[in-house]
Amino acid sequence: MKRFEVWAPRARRVQLVTREGRTPLRRASGGWFRSDLPLEGELDYAFSLDGGEPLPDPRSRWQPEGVFGFSRTRESRPQESSGFEAVSLRRAVFYELHVGTFTAAGTFRATIERLDHLLALGVTHVELMPVAAFSGEHGWGYDGVAPFAPHPAYGSPDDLRELVRACHTRGLAVVFDVVHNHVGPEGNFLPRFGPYFSERQHTRWGPAPNLDGPESDEVRRYFIDSALVWLREYEGDGLRLDAVHGLVDQSPLHFLEELRGAVDSLSLALGRPLFLIAESDANDPRLVRPARDGGIGMDAAWNDDFHHALHTYLTGERDGYYADFAGCADVVESLARGFVYAGRYSPHRRRRHGRADRRLSGERLVGFAQNHDQVGNRARGDRLAGTLSPERLMVAAGLVLTSPFIPLLFQGEEWGARTPFPFFCDYTDGALREAVRSGRREALAASGKECTDLLDPCAQATFVAAKLDWTELERPQHQRVFAWYQALLSLRRRLHALGSGPLLGADVRCSEKEGWISFRRGSLQFAAHIGSEVASIPVDRLAPPGVLLASGAGHRLVENRLELAADSFAVLAPL
Amino acid sequence: MKRFEVWAPRARRVQLVTREGRTPLRRASGGWFRSDLPLEGELDYAFSLDGGEPLPDPRSRWQPEGVFGFSRTRESRPQESSGFEAVSLRRAVFYELHVGTFTAAGTFRATIERLDHLLALGVTHVELMPVAAFSGEHGWGYDGVAPFAPHPAYGSPDDLRELVRACHTRGLAVVFDVVHNHVGPEGNFLPRFGPYFSERQHTRWGPAPNLDGPESDEVRRYFIDSALVWLREYEGDGLRLDAVHGLVDQSPLHFLEELRGAVDSLSLALGRPLFLIAESDANDPRLVRPARDGGIGMDAAWNDDFHHALHTYLTGERDGYYADFAGCADVVESLARGFVYAGRYSPHRRRRHGRADRRLSGERLVGFAQNHDQVGNRARGDRLAGTLSPERLMVAAGLVLTSPFIPLLFQGEEWGARTPFPFFCDYTDGALREAVRSGRREALAASGKECTDLLDPCAQATFVAAKLDWTELERPQHQRVFAWYQALLSLRRRLHALGSGPLLGADVRCSEKEGWISFRRGSLQFAAHIGSEVASIPVDRLAPPGVLLASGAGHRLVENRLELAADSFAVLAPL
Repeated sequence: MKRFEVWAPRARRVQLVTREGRTPLRRASGGWFRSDLPLEGELDYAFSLDGGEPLPDPRSRWQPEGVFGFSRTRESRPQESSGFEAVSLRRAVFYELHVGTFTAAGTFRATIERLDHLLALGVTHVELMPVAAFSGEHGWGYDGVAPFAPHPAYGSPDDLRELVRACHTRGLAVVFDVVHNHVGPEGNFLPRFGPYFSERQHTRWGPAPNLDGPESDEVRRYFIDSALVWLREYEGDGLRLDAVHGLVDQSPLHFLEELRGAVDSLSLALGRPLFLIAESDANDPRLVRPARDGGIGMDAAWNDDFHHALHTYLTGERDGYYADFAGCADVVESLARGFVYAGRYSPHRRRRHGRADRRLSGERLVGFAQNHDQVGNRARGDRLAGTLSPERLMVAAGLVLTSPFIPLLFQGEEWGARTPFPFFCDYTDGALREAVRSGRREALAASGKECTDLLDPCAQATFVAAKLDWTELERPQHQRVFAWYQALLSLRRRLHALGSGPLLGADVRCSEKEGWISFRRGSLQFAAHIGSEVASIPVDRLAPPGVLLASGAGHRLVENRLELAADSFAVLAPL
Repeated sequence: MKRFEVWAPRARRVQLVTREGRTPLRRASGGWFRSDLPLEGELDYAFSLDGGEPLPDPRSRWQPEGVFGFSRTRESRPQESSGFEAVSLRRAVFYELHVGTFTAAGTFRATIERLDHLLALGVTHVELMPVAAFSGEHGWGYDGVAPFAPHPAYGSPDDLRELVRACHTRGLAVVFDVVHNHVGPEGNFLPRFGPYFSERQHTRWGPAPNLDGPESDEVRRYFIDSALVWLREYEGDGLRLDAVHGLVDQSPLHFLEELRGAVDSLSLALGRPLFLIAESDANDPRLVRPARDGGIGMDAAWNDDFHHALHTYLTGERDGYYADFAGCADVVESLARGFVYAGRYSPHRRRRHGRADRRLSGERLVGFAQNHDQVGNRARGDRLAGTLSPERLMVAAGLVLTSPFIPLLFQGEEWGARTPFPFFCDYTDGALREAVRSGRREALAASGKECTDLLDPCAQATFVAAKLDWTELERPQHQRVFAWYQALLSLRRRLHALGSGPLLGADVRCSEKEGWISFRRGSLQFAAHIGSEVASIPVDRLAPPGVLLASGAGHRLVENRLELAADSFAVLAPL
């Protein structure tokens, strides 16, 4: 027997549609329709509301023909736990990966073949950009419309399960990136089934879910259940929640708190820890404060401020939102206190931004020099490697991988990949494609970034160009970068004091004039230097110190100072 | 010298306009324009932006000719503190009063003449429905557009100050009802001055303030400064904040937290306590949790659930939002735990509503059987006295005035006034008047209330009919009700255990069948009975008990039971 069920509170009748015909479902309470039907093997099916056309199951676990096609049942096999347990977030280093461009084939199975590279690199967590099914063959995935089903162009549900198992076998945890603040603009049949979307709210990416209006209980349950699928059915170890500032929920139990509760219950049932990491634009420490202290209870949040400060420090760029950041001093502010904007006036936003919290810890923040957004939201999708020397890339890596934050790397940055990662999508509707093109242009213009020369997001070539070129790794200049990442990750792994942890407070300082930043963690001292001259950096309380690790053209310890060449990073330790 | 200043970030130049001519203001930083000009006595003035028509000062302290007219300066006289200090909220009993209808004259000065009635009644706090200037002569006042200035039809700033002093002289504290979630639909010139309103949000009463968008810092400061005026310049003891669920603020420091901080600073500066009470539809305990526990820090919130439960208990009405409430059991739920809806599914809202918090105390909730909204939002604005016998009114008073909440009475209920309190306004624009009429009809229909026979909100007669008829107090049946209110208030004042305090938990129970509710506070037992038969109510642990106070047709103690006549309320105490 297989249970077919769907929530369709407006429908008078619902039929199960198969290749053979139609069968009525029984009306159950609360707007649900359901029937238990005898079934062996797999079955392609859809639902018809009040005699209308067949629509895919909103909770479909498999859309083999894409989001417009029939849903397919999955045989429910009892699944044995792999017994895998992820390393704690304190020891975690994330690696953000886009299945479609990580490999030439762009599939779950092809991803498996590259896992040993990640093992050699030394990261601990593989973070998959959204793999829920979306319209078209390729795309970033933030426009999913079937949040319970993997994207068919990446492979089958079994393929995805195998990828997760392959990660676990190698000691790598798996993080699924899920989107609840909107659904994609194409292939979204949810409004036909019920009041899934708010009439009051609309995001610039699509309709916003109805999280607090009439009948929102079932809508919340829908998105929460979809989140749990990746943890339970695919054995994910945690979730990355996209743009949670876009979740408009004025009810007293915020959607994220309810999700936290559901994930904690699942964790208890499964007997393994599960974490939640939110991307948020709000700089709100309450997001990562535990519920017992009045917080929302996320394990961690992405720290865009650290990225922006670091980016301006490395590149000198000041356009768009980078206008709010001033290099050195703001990198220091971020390492010292977490957010750069914690109540300070933001010229770019034209209002005060963020909120201070002395209890905030680096363990609650994810730090990165690059990610899909920060690379992809540039007109040409160029990485730091497009404009910076390998030496500067290595300084960036030094700061990220010795920071008190949970570090996150973006696929390919570990060898200074030169392939771009521009925004790409594959909508079928001509008007929508045009709207995406112009929307993209406007978004870039609004953020103040130069947008001459914008790549066409809808061109197949834009997607193909984003695929990583693994042959780069055969060249010495890339190998040198890769080896540096390996060395830093090895150091972070070996030294307990280098896990994510307390923010640095007074233990970090800089010289704006000479372009160096220096900080202490445990008994170690770290020094970064961006500039053209040799910098002279005071060495603190280490007698006698030694250079444990260094990048760049040279360094020398002279009495209580470190002379560090331009564009270098060094780690000092007591001898 | 007098400082003239205005925030007009879009203007290239600003002129001060007087009856004599125009004088340019100097551009200052942050979008402000200001000048210090020699001035003796009062001056009528306005501002002109970029050579346009004269507009009233957004921060005007006086609009003698109404919200479309010139602003008038006030002489700033050093004000001596009266030394008054309000009783604590634990001991408070509020009296909600609408200046325009409380007396025949409808002015601040006329209000003073009736204060001795409030003293005789025994309330502690006078809560003035909004007195900030709005368009037209009469209205409820929730459509204010000059939030720093008293409504001229009520009198001058000096008159209002005198009213507050007169209250304080009698030991009565003064609460100002202020509106920040929208401004009125007529006479609102703020959009001409700057981005005061959100483009994303609009309430059904008017545009919603820009609390988190670009340039929101000044907008927040504007509304916060306007709130402080009533505390500092008019010596108010606290504020009632209208419909705070309508404040849409996604920033990490909620507007209400910032207001709390500003009010606390003022309290320190003035050397007297100042409180904030919020009206909220959200049933969110976080609103009244202290900031140190992750809360918003309001002192208390209106408890509509208690009202609705009580209303259905007393009247048997089940239309509109009353469909969610079922009399006895929900009165018990509210007395026991505060909110009836604390996460439970609400059929009327078609979603779960509210949130539970075991730490919630009755001190944090305001309880009432009637208020301007609950009376006024009925088609004919009829009070409980319109349909209930004096005996039932006295049961209502018994439950409110012995409850663990902060009690609030609505003007006239203390003598069972029969005058209605329908919605009324006085807009000048014909289309707006028509819109108010139909909007009113739709709102009542949407809330499920019968709306045949709706009073015309724009008719002068509707306002006049709402004026209290003080001659009622000369009639015995009204005097009997008044004496009962006096007796209950006297009891509440005398017995420390009867202040607002812990919720009742297991100390309250009811018999749905017999229609009684019984609860204990301290060593006292209270019994309410609505029905047609005599009820037999168990007496707890009081041996031998006596009846301290009772309303209704009769009561008798028989062994360990109280026999209580229909529609009665009794207070038992140990002999």
